[in-house]
Amino acid sequence: MKLYTYWRSSAAYRVRIALNLKGLEVEMASVHLAKGDQERQAYGAINPQKLIPCLELDDGMVIAQSLAIIEYLDETHPNPALLPADPVARARTRALAQAIAVDIHPVNNLRVLKYLKGVLGLSESAKDTWYTHWILEGFAGVEESLTRSAIPGPFLGGAAPGLFEICLIPQLYNARRFSVDLSPFPRLTAIEELCVALPAFKRAAPENQPDAQ
Amino acid sequence: MKLYTYWRSSAAYRVRIALNLKGLEVEMASVHLAKGDQERQAYGAINPQKLIPCLELDDGMVIAQSLAIIEYLDETHPNPALLPADPVARARTRALAQAIAVDIHPVNNLRVLKYLKGVLGLSESAKDTWYTHWILEGFAGVEESLTRSAIPGPFLGGAAPGLFEICLIPQLYNARRFSVDLSPFPRLTAIEELCVALPAFKRAAPENQPDAQ
Repeated sequence: MKLYTYWRSSAAYRVRIALNLKGLEVEMASVHLAKGDQERQAYGAINPQKLIPCLELDDGMVIAQSLAIIEYLDETHPNPALLPADPVARARTRALAQAIAVDIHPVNNLRVLKYLKGVLGLSESAKDTWYTHWILEGFAGVEESLTRSAIPGPFLGGAAPGLFEICLIPQLYNARRFSVDLSPFPRLTAIEELCVALPAFKRAAPENQPDAQ
Repeated sequence: MKLYTYWRSSAAYRVRIALNLKGLEVEMASVHLAKGDQERQAYGAINPQKLIPCLELDDGMVIAQSLAIIEYLDETHPNPALLPADPVARARTRALAQAIAVDIHPVNNLRVLKYLKGVLGLSESAKDTWYTHWILEGFAGVEESLTRSAIPGPFLGGAAPGLFEICLIPQLYNARRFSVDLSPFPRLTAIEELCVALPAFKRAAPENQPDAQ
């Protein structure tokens, strides 16, 4: 398998964590987002959506969308499981992962920030305010959900990290990059502290990618 | 079960279609998005993320996020299936559904449009340009994906609609509401024409909801 990735893409970061948790080694092809490589014909021929990441299977089939890729990996390589077995627990894990991957990340994605600055002419500071706003609003909901429900701990699903942590850690990485105050989210940062010490998360971190600059 | 819904919420519209396809009758509780009911304490006590929809189970457990709810319904009521059985086909269906539900819809969500107009002071026309931009960009990728791959037809997964169509139809409804030119997307509109004639889609349509205005 080959993963089209970019060191700073948090959607690619998610898939890298999932691959590491599953113990899967894949070829990595870097697509330079900041230079616009995803807009070029060569990448469009692979993923018509022109977004990172996508996973090319050995038969040439391509799977786009980080959440779809991660569910595919979980279905085809079931151990260790990234989702609990019980349907309600699975739904809760997916919902909290999506609170981040659907309702925070796409609104703060590079192409959106480019539109804000380029088309709408926003200042750097107005853009940062936008970025921070959606992170704070999204994290507040997730933190409150964790506070209310009894979590087995130390991770959402118990002894091991899964889909939720896979989405949480890259988003926290982005928040720190933009100096967002994370003190209102002690449950999220407690999970982060545990995750970043794990080899699967360390190896997947942006600064540890070959295309990091 | 009880669905917290709003007639014009396209994420709620997705869940309504899924419930109808499964033949499940649930209680409907309207949360008036335009009046800000989702921001009130009463709804925050149910869904800390303050977004529509969420599904309350008979034991009081609440599942947020439309995609998580739909996967939950599919796992607990497997017939008719909303995802194919083959892992690669499942991944393709999820990826195309997410191309809409993750990369178009959240960027055009009501709260984002409110921020554009309220905080950033965008004109109605600049807001509409934003809205149209993300729909055109997103649909272009989905249309191209359908063009390239051999689809059994008439729906993405074959004889019956599933997760992809559940996400596509509400997004097309929104596009039409904003008078987006859909002529570049003949494959999407061909699927739409078939879907909107089906009772499960008709009953779920915004204008057929009790809280429609």
